[in-house]
Amino acid sequence: MRILLIGYGTMNKITARLAEEEGHEIAGVILRDDTGDLPYPAFRSIDAADADVAIDFSHPELILPLLENEVKTPLVIATTGEKETIIEKLEEKSADIPVFFSANMSYGVHVLNEVLKKALSMLDDFDLEMIERHHNKKVDAPSGTLVKLLDTALDHREDSYPVYDRSNLHEKRKPEEIGVSAIRGGSIVGTHDVIFAKDDEVIEIRHQAQSKEIFANGALKAANELVKRQTGFYDYNNLFEER
Amino acid sequence: MRILLIGYGTMNKITARLAEEEGHEIAGVILRDDTGDLPYPAFRSIDAADADVAIDFSHPELILPLLENEVKTPLVIATTGEKETIIEKLEEKSADIPVFFSANMSYGVHVLNEVLKKALSMLDDFDLEMIERHHNKKVDAPSGTLVKLLDTALDHREDSYPVYDRSNLHEKRKPEEIGVSAIRGGSIVGTHDVIFAKDDEVIEIRHQAQSKEIFANGALKAANELVKRQTGFYDYNNLFEER
Amino acid sequence: MRILLIGYGTMNKITARLAEEEGHEIAGVILRDDTGDLPYPAFRSIDAADADVAIDFSHPELILPLLENEVKTPLVIATTGEKETIIEKLEEKSADIPVFFSANMSYGVHVLNEVLKKALSMLDDFDLEMIERHHNKKVDAPSGTLVKLLDTALDHREDSYPVYDRSNLHEKRKPEEIGVSAIRGGSIVGTHDVIFAKDDEVIEIRHQAQSKEIFANGALKAANELVKRQTGFYDYNNLFEER
Amino acid sequence: MRILLIGYGTMNKITARLAEEEGHEIAGVILRDDTGDLPYPAFRSIDAADADVAIDFSHPELILPLLENEVKTPLVIATTGEKETIIEKLEEKSADIPVFFSANMSYGVHVLNEVLKKALSMLDDFDLEMIERHHNKKVDAPSGTLVKLLDTALDHREDSYPVYDRSNLHEKRKPEEIGVSAIRGGSIVGTHDVIFAKDDEVIEIRHQAQSKEIFANGALKAANELVKRQTGFYDYNNLFEER
Repeated sequence: MRILLIGYGTMNKITARLAEEEGHEIAGVILRDDTGDLPYPAFRSIDAADADVAIDFSHPELILPLLENEVKTPLVIATTGEKETIIEKLEEKSADIPVFFSANMSYGVHVLNEVLKKALSMLDDFDLEMIERHHNKKVDAPSGTLVKLLDTALDHREDSYPVYDRSNLHEKRKPEEIGVSAIRGGSIVGTHDVIFAKDDEVIEIRHQAQSKEIFANGALKAANELVKRQTGFYDYNNLFEER
Repeated sequence: MRILLIGYGTMNKITARLAEEEGHEIAGVILRDDTGDLPYPAFRSIDAADADVAIDFSHPELILPLLENEVKTPLVIATTGEKETIIEKLEEKSADIPVFFSANMSYGVHVLNEVLKKALSMLDDFDLEMIERHHNKKVDAPSGTLVKLLDTALDHREDSYPVYDRSNLHEKRKPEEIGVSAIRGGSIVGTHDVIFAKDDEVIEIRHQAQSKEIFANGALKAANELVKRQTGFYDYNNLFEER
Repeated sequence: MRILLIGYGTMNKITARLAEEEGHEIAGVILRDDTGDLPYPAFRSIDAADADVAIDFSHPELILPLLENEVKTPLVIATTGEKETIIEKLEEKSADIPVFFSANMSYGVHVLNEVLKKALSMLDDFDLEMIERHHNKKVDAPSGTLVKLLDTALDHREDSYPVYDRSNLHEKRKPEEIGVSAIRGGSIVGTHDVIFAKDDEVIEIRHQAQSKEIFANGALKAANELVKRQTGFYDYNNLFEER
Repeated sequence: MRILLIGYGTMNKITARLAEEEGHEIAGVILRDDTGDLPYPAFRSIDAADADVAIDFSHPELILPLLENEVKTPLVIATTGEKETIIEKLEEKSADIPVFFSANMSYGVHVLNEVLKKALSMLDDFDLEMIERHHNKKVDAPSGTLVKLLDTALDHREDSYPVYDRSNLHEKRKPEEIGVSAIRGGSIVGTHDVIFAKDDEVIEIRHQAQSKEIFANGALKAANELVKRQTGFYDYNNLFEER
């Protein structure tokens, strides 16, 4: 594939390296500012690069204006932030081109979420707790991925709500609580634990990322599949299962 | 419920205690030998106890002869060993009465197996390894539960096979391998880990038992549901989902 | 040994059972109120029972008044609460009798704390986080054991301080932080994790209790050793290493 | 520091990158064969590079002949294989120059081994098991690091011996056994677990490597310290504690 990169931060640098290792070609890059030295041609609009697919790991400030124009290139979008606006725009575009969107490009995290749904359906009366671990430079907590897993759980459990700190509570845990803990240290890439506990047994599901390559790999995997489609709005729930 | 206990070893002693705590009545016990001091009446045949349900944690030598006679009492059977013969007998009986059979009475282990199936369906190209931990008095390895999980995995992965020892191999792991490891120590009740690993990410599912009560609780939970049925052969896959 | 039990709640009931299984004799019990039905003689003062050792799992309200009187019986004390007052009293007593005190009677937790000290001495520049897990009926958080481990860490790390909730912070972790998380669910007896993380590596130390018997076993182990001493104030740091 | 690299495989390529990021200079490289394109000058003998320190991640075939000559450059040696011969040579050299040798350059693994010693000294009667996890391309099992940890345990426990496979045993675990399990999957960099289990409690110590950078970082950390010394044979046990 000829791939256009939208944004060229940590993630799209990894995407470029992995893509080239797999034999793909980087058609070019779109950045907000012309910051000089780039190993690839710079473009100002998506279609100008004549790429087979565009992979975005950027920011709403970069991707939203680009989506104001007509786009004929299939899009793999991983920008986080302004989720509703972006999804709305992408849904418009998906009438004409195939679009893949995921706030978390790791296939494994998608599997974790699906396995969590299965477990939730069978473990109504188990207490549920979630723990995530990330590096010491991360400023937000809990992680976006944990928020996604939490949303899945909140959807399945009526009247449930998250509890972030027990150190100032002095009462028994209620079944409706979903405990959420965030661990920070070193250069941990990302670990997510979901813990179901009931009398005398515990079921635990963990996803552990070892490097950020999983997100670039996920984007490439999605791109590979997306270019076979004509139009439509895809995510991990329908891209690999539909055909 | 009035409950007849078939066998009165560790497991049915726990069952008796938990059943009474929940307000059930122990109608009596069936043993192979009259071994004197019993806190409950001894019986020789299942229906003689006039119980609502019989819960068996015994041996093929005790349960099989009992099944030679007509039985009108619903049966919850957890005997391990001679599985095929016992299932055959129980299927005959299930034309007239409701029968529940599981080689592992823990509901959590059943959930682990179901969650494993879900994960297997999405993780074709992940390497798969299994580890179990049990107390230092267990003579067999791997555990019956791990064998069950392994069977689930072997069914899903064509040409796959277990590897029990890598210390005498000197070659790269093949994708068809399923590594199986058994840890023994202290009084560990039972922990089972299923590990899926691919480039830069690992998904792990763990069930941990804290006491043998989970098996008695599982039998009581099944009994509670079973007494509402007329006839049929049940296990965890259909008892709670069918209605 | 002839053992006097001070208090007869969950822990001393377990102590009685394990002591008898090991061939010891329960001399009697001291309670705050005469609550009728007891399987052992009731006493009002420690020496009246003519025991070889007294094992206390009670409350300051019961043990403190008893310590106002002269005591000639060796004492194993596990009461939590009013720690300073109790230690002061016990130090007085230890001029005449051997006394063992620990707010956590598990030998394994003591080992965890010692291993933690070793790790702290070598891992100055690793980020440190602690997680504990307990059952859903526990009303306080973090657990007393985690507080003990935290005190050990705070002693080793100048200017360090605990952080209980990151969900309302929006800044990078500081090296002086020690993250503390409390998980609650099911009937988990008690798990404590200490996590050291630095660039690209994590060292983790975990203690997992499977039943409350570890506390009764610890008290019996301490009692067994204590009755060989004449006088002195002991804890896990000096009882087994001194001779 | 001006650093000479002995060998230029995966590990020393990482060393070069990290060293330059920290402001050090790569003086050159020694390889067995002149394989053309190198980003650094090639040398044939250690002192020819006029470096402050040499860092070796190579093979006995490369390093042993180099040690036949006089060497005045401080040496950090991480070659595995022919350990006895290499140590003998290095001890000779250490009369004239400072030498650092470790079969595992990770500081965290060194800490794991020290913490293990502490735990072994307090947990005589706990059952001991070890598990390591590595990527699916590793041909040997168990890993060199696990062998080192095992040696530590065998030294502390008289009459102890490793058990690599329980699937063909049908007997209770003996206290002298040390269970050893090897897990292989994906691109796992290296995880080592040491498990101590006794009645109702488990203590577990884990080291997890996230990338091979920990070995390069360890070599650089050792080099930084080594250049301050005149002569002597060092490893992690004495390099950082001695002064």
